[in-house]
Amino acid sequence: MMAYLTPAVRNVLSWYDGERPGVKASLARMLMHGRTGGSGKLVILPVDQGFEHGPARSFAANPPAYDPHYHFELAIDAGLSAFAAPLGLLAAGANRYAGEIPLILKANNANGLGTVKDEAITGTVRDALELGCSAVGYTIYPGSDRQYDMFEEVRAGAAEAKANGLAVVVWAYPRGGQLDARAETALDVVAYGAHIAALLGAHIIKVKPPTSYIAEPEAQQAYASGDYARLHDRIAHVVQTAFDGHRIVIFSGGPARDDATILEEIRDIHRGGGHGSIVGRNAFQRPRGEALELLGKIIDVHLEGND
Amino acid sequence: MMAYLTPAVRNVLSWYDGERPGVKASLARMLMHGRTGGSGKLVILPVDQGFEHGPARSFAANPPAYDPHYHFELAIDAGLSAFAAPLGLLAAGANRYAGEIPLILKANNANGLGTVKDEAITGTVRDALELGCSAVGYTIYPGSDRQYDMFEEVRAGAAEAKANGLAVVVWAYPRGGQLDARAETALDVVAYGAHIAALLGAHIIKVKPPTSYIAEPEAQQAYASGDYARLHDRIAHVVQTAFDGHRIVIFSGGPARDDATILEEIRDIHRGGGHGSIVGRNAFQRPRGEALELLGKIIDVHLEGND
Amino acid sequence: MMAYLTPAVRNVLSWYDGERPGVKASLARMLMHGRTGGSGKLVILPVDQGFEHGPARSFAANPPAYDPHYHFELAIDAGLSAFAAPLGLLAAGANRYAGEIPLILKANNANGLGTVKDEAITGTVRDALELGCSAVGYTIYPGSDRQYDMFEEVRAGAAEAKANGLAVVVWAYPRGGQLDARAETALDVVAYGAHIAALLGAHIIKVKPPTSYIAEPEAQQAYASGDYARLHDRIAHVVQTAFDGHRIVIFSGGPARDDATILEEIRDIHRGGGHGSIVGRNAFQRPRGEALELLGKIIDVHLEGND
Amino acid sequence: MMAYLTPAVRNVLSWYDGERPGVKASLARMLMHGRTGGSGKLVILPVDQGFEHGPARSFAANPPAYDPHYHFELAIDAGLSAFAAPLGLLAAGANRYAGEIPLILKANNANGLGTVKDEAITGTVRDALELGCSAVGYTIYPGSDRQYDMFEEVRAGAAEAKANGLAVVVWAYPRGGQLDARAETALDVVAYGAHIAALLGAHIIKVKPPTSYIAEPEAQQAYASGDYARLHDRIAHVVQTAFDGHRIVIFSGGPARDDATILEEIRDIHRGGGHGSIVGRNAFQRPRGEALELLGKIIDVHLEGND
Amino acid sequence: MMAYLTPAVRNVLSWYDGERPGVKASLARMLMHGRTGGSGKLVILPVDQGFEHGPARSFAANPPAYDPHYHFELAIDAGLSAFAAPLGLLAAGANRYAGEIPLILKANNANGLGTVKDEAITGTVRDALELGCSAVGYTIYPGSDRQYDMFEEVRAGAAEAKANGLAVVVWAYPRGGQLDARAETALDVVAYGAHIAALLGAHIIKVKPPTSYIAEPEAQQAYASGDYARLHDRIAHVVQTAFDGHRIVIFSGGPARDDATILEEIRDIHRGGGHGSIVGRNAFQRPRGEALELLGKIIDVHLEGND
Repeated sequence: MMAYLTPAVRNVLSWYDGERPGVKASLARMLMHGRTGGSGKLVILPVDQGFEHGPARSFAANPPAYDPHYHFELAIDAGLSAFAAPLGLLAAGANRYAGEIPLILKANNANGLGTVKDEAITGTVRDALELGCSAVGYTIYPGSDRQYDMFEEVRAGAAEAKANGLAVVVWAYPRGGQLDARAETALDVVAYGAHIAALLGAHIIKVKPPTSYIAEPEAQQAYASGDYARLHDRIAHVVQTAFDGHRIVIFSGGPARDDATILEEIRDIHRGGGHGSIVGRNAFQRPRGEALELLGKIIDVHLEGND
Repeated sequence: MMAYLTPAVRNVLSWYDGERPGVKASLARMLMHGRTGGSGKLVILPVDQGFEHGPARSFAANPPAYDPHYHFELAIDAGLSAFAAPLGLLAAGANRYAGEIPLILKANNANGLGTVKDEAITGTVRDALELGCSAVGYTIYPGSDRQYDMFEEVRAGAAEAKANGLAVVVWAYPRGGQLDARAETALDVVAYGAHIAALLGAHIIKVKPPTSYIAEPEAQQAYASGDYARLHDRIAHVVQTAFDGHRIVIFSGGPARDDATILEEIRDIHRGGGHGSIVGRNAFQRPRGEALELLGKIIDVHLEGND
Repeated sequence: MMAYLTPAVRNVLSWYDGERPGVKASLARMLMHGRTGGSGKLVILPVDQGFEHGPARSFAANPPAYDPHYHFELAIDAGLSAFAAPLGLLAAGANRYAGEIPLILKANNANGLGTVKDEAITGTVRDALELGCSAVGYTIYPGSDRQYDMFEEVRAGAAEAKANGLAVVVWAYPRGGQLDARAETALDVVAYGAHIAALLGAHIIKVKPPTSYIAEPEAQQAYASGDYARLHDRIAHVVQTAFDGHRIVIFSGGPARDDATILEEIRDIHRGGGHGSIVGRNAFQRPRGEALELLGKIIDVHLEGND
Repeated sequence: MMAYLTPAVRNVLSWYDGERPGVKASLARMLMHGRTGGSGKLVILPVDQGFEHGPARSFAANPPAYDPHYHFELAIDAGLSAFAAPLGLLAAGANRYAGEIPLILKANNANGLGTVKDEAITGTVRDALELGCSAVGYTIYPGSDRQYDMFEEVRAGAAEAKANGLAVVVWAYPRGGQLDARAETALDVVAYGAHIAALLGAHIIKVKPPTSYIAEPEAQQAYASGDYARLHDRIAHVVQTAFDGHRIVIFSGGPARDDATILEEIRDIHRGGGHGSIVGRNAFQRPRGEALELLGKIIDVHLEGND
Repeated sequence: MMAYLTPAVRNVLSWYDGERPGVKASLARMLMHGRTGGSGKLVILPVDQGFEHGPARSFAANPPAYDPHYHFELAIDAGLSAFAAPLGLLAAGANRYAGEIPLILKANNANGLGTVKDEAITGTVRDALELGCSAVGYTIYPGSDRQYDMFEEVRAGAAEAKANGLAVVVWAYPRGGQLDARAETALDVVAYGAHIAALLGAHIIKVKPPTSYIAEPEAQQAYASGDYARLHDRIAHVVQTAFDGHRIVIFSGGPARDDATILEEIRDIHRGGGHGSIVGRNAFQRPRGEALELLGKIIDVHLEGND
């Protein structure tokens, strides 16, 4: 047999031993696609900013991005691994770009106009299957008053997704409860979020790069002997808490910043063993040419040391 | 083949590429009906004021309007695109006027006597199908404490509607949460509501004409470079936030006013690229003759430049 | 064909054009039964006072009324149109009196011991069918914090009832929210409740006779030009708000009072175009003989001018 | 035919005219069992104290009662009509004692450690059928903030029970809402609870013996003309409010007390027309021999005047 | 027949008389496995600390424990009876170690970042069956405001588990409501939790070793005559409250402590008739060699007096 999958991808799939073949095939589809295809790394374009922050705050800086097709083509032309978006946005291009790039249905969403820390289920596994997606994605807010409802929604959605051969992505964003704003990106809290995502059965976990702050008094001791001053060590810790590096953990880039800062962070993610990046605002809030250039450089970093 | 659909309607349908044929046929039924038929524009009569404000406040100014049949005949005789109403009102004429005009079941409703910012589901897709409707419609209140429940109700209803070949209309009325009364019609907020409706999978989005006020502090910068002093530019912005003009966005007229003011606003909607109007109180709160005259003029404006 | 239905009943049924044949047959069963049979009017005995106010407050004044059979026989012997009661009470006589009188299952109920303005669903359409009922009935509290839940329960119950050929009765009792005790019987508020019941799809609407008070500031103007000093004009207005008189609207009599007062009110209901009466406490809180006499007189009033 | 059922039992069954044959058979099974078998009276052992008050408070006074089998054997050896307990306790002996005594699954339970006035559904009709029960039992708290949820749970459970030939027992314990501790056993309130249980469709109603206190101001008048100083008259009133004596109403004995007091109360229950007793703590919180003796005397009282 | 089951195991199974054969077989699988196999005792490794306390607090002391496989191998190599963990962790090794050790799906979980005393359902009976588990486990918080929801979730899960031949484990942790921190381990409260677990139908009950504190004022009297100064007497009392010793009750070890203290406590559990231990942090928060040594000693204690 002439193997299609690379050893790096086979290695990643081995972490999901026991999972259904259809799920492995969906993971492989994303891992083999685009410029990082075969390397075991993922670079994903997510476009749910319009739901979270509103359209003008998301797209006014680069008006062509008001068009859903813009994002499909940006992800395709940049050679990304997958494109993630809410139901309406995905449905606006799923037929036109069918087969061009793996899709992830972002199945729950929050709205910045309200004050309740929760999300609405806005898409289903059935929707994802009809749109030809490879995965469904859910945000959880560990710590919030609604966290248990959110976990139960993920549980139900993930079970249905897996039974239908879809991969499951979890955006782990601790907030609410005992957590203030600074705690949301604290090392212990980000790691806690990643671990919960893994325990809930996520195949791919998306978190923010953590700061060196330790938020929980009870966790101080556990971090006392380690050195977490450098980002790549913090990245390595978060990856470790996701089943000792046996779950795909990818990191977001946060608000739009200058390229040097972004790429330095990506290098730390790569050095710390992160499995890729999810780049939204830094991709679509600049002109297409500049976006393609930055995404190219991000991919290059994730491919360093890869042959 | 002698095409029945006009190029303008074919263009609109192209925005819904990938949608089920039955849904496209339902959209086409409304787009080909009445005096705006074939132009790509819609003018709709909605009669849910009785639920929202009570019967006397809605119909005392024009007592024949207490009769459900009055509204069916008004919409038919004015050559409108569709008639939208709650279950009981639609059911009171659906048989008698079957086939005369496309119907939209307004499937959730609120009641002005209470204080909770929410709506009740008062009709189902099954009801809409039995009544011969072309679409179901839902109101959402982005920002309210119940918004996520409302989004989930729309999600469930829209999925069932689409699977049964019905179009989905969303009335996007931000309110509650961080929004005061002035914010409800602010440009950024109206645009946000339209965008969320699109992301939820609405085919037709109904919003209020926005003021030039920007309510969200975080959104100020996104609007800083634009000029939104004129209504038609604001209309154009809202249409842009609905997938770059690739969703049907129609505008309401608000409380009863003098004709000149109404028609000037309609002209701005038309000039800004709005896809039509939904005219309730300005239609049924005046004598039938005057209503037909005003609706005729509104249609004329929406047909300007159309051959 | 020798028509069984009278022209008056045919006229009433014509208001429900488009409704399923089974529903029309159930309406006809009530409209053709008892002494008002054929006249288009209804006089109904409701016995849910025990649930709402407790047994002694309901029946101590006339102890034989503790027995469910008493009420069946009272309704039958008085020649009423139908008998309405909660599940347990109906079930206690449904077999013994099967076929003697149309039954209405009062499917939700409230309890005076608590403080929450809501009702429990205590019966189902399935129960109603098993008991041989012609209709199911629901109370709604427009304005209360639970109103939307109640509307959704009515919606679901009504849809199932209609699909099974049962008629739907709605007791519209505005309360809670912005409404104080005086507002509950205000003309605008009672009319609002009747209109919502019609919009929810009720076939028969039960309200209280309204006072001349207008509770909503926003509604003052709508009532400014009318003269509502006399009860029969208020009755006519409420009937008008129920689809311009095309829904059966019946009125309750309130607490036990002297016969002259009651009959004067009934005359106003009749003169205002009300379609009948629902008489509870004034029927079962007096000795059987007196009750039959009063009910006879009430029926006489509703038959005035009828041949 | 040599009739198995006695005239007394046939009489009781006649109250449930129209009920399914399977339900009548289940009622008959309890009414024909044990020493009161055939008399139309019931004496039942309930053991849910462990759930309500904890194990030591329930069983430390008589340690053999920690064993579930103890209760089965106590009920059997005392010649009782039925044994009622929560799921786990019934399941611990249902097989061993299958067929020895009718069983009642107490299907909801509360826990004294918490502060919320509600109960959890801890068993189902399906469980009851698997365990070979003759009935399911539910507690309701008329007046509490959760009362409508509880009523709806009873409604659903009772409907399923009846459809499967099981009888329905309701423990009516008014509390919460407008009721203080004294009101919970007030005559008007206990009667109200019994009446609601009947309206909800209970076949057997269990209440506490009422005091002569009248708690509701609105109910004072209804009780003004009666004389309720003696317990047996209060018992008779409660029985009257349960469909004029056409529902089985049984009374609990409350906390452990001296035998003379207990038996005097039983005599009043018997004299007032109560249909039996449900004796928990007074049965299992004393040595087995003493318990058998007291239960024997209780049965004797209920059989007085019976041949 | 050459019996496979030992007399001790047969005796334990006899407590579950009437339970389905599949459930007995699942219980037998755990009771016959590992070094305590055949003795009637259980020693279980639970790894849900990562969900409850976060990954670093759980595993930083012994980093190999970040890897799910570590725990499977620890449990296997120590000769334990079963391994219990949340869905994601079990799924990470269930295929690789299929058949090596009985598995328990911990089907609900709480997260230390929040403030709400509840748990999320994170796994289902269907999941447990797919993973080849012998049991499902649920935590309950008797006393908390959510306790009744939790009981109902256990009820539903347990019924489905039993119908599918799985055993049911309940972790009974009273908290919330009237209970302060000290009360959570009070003798009366721990016993109450164990009793409720039994009443809910648990086959295996897991509690904490109780202190001699009596928390409930109403329970003082019930404990007044007993002597509960020594732990083994308190253990014996808790076992007694679980159906007089006819349910498997196992005890947790609490936070990591020195071995002498741990083993002394285990000896008291053994002496008091406890049916085994569930050892988490004391097992995986130390180097593997030391863990195997301690677990070996714990097993030795539980086997004392056993031949």
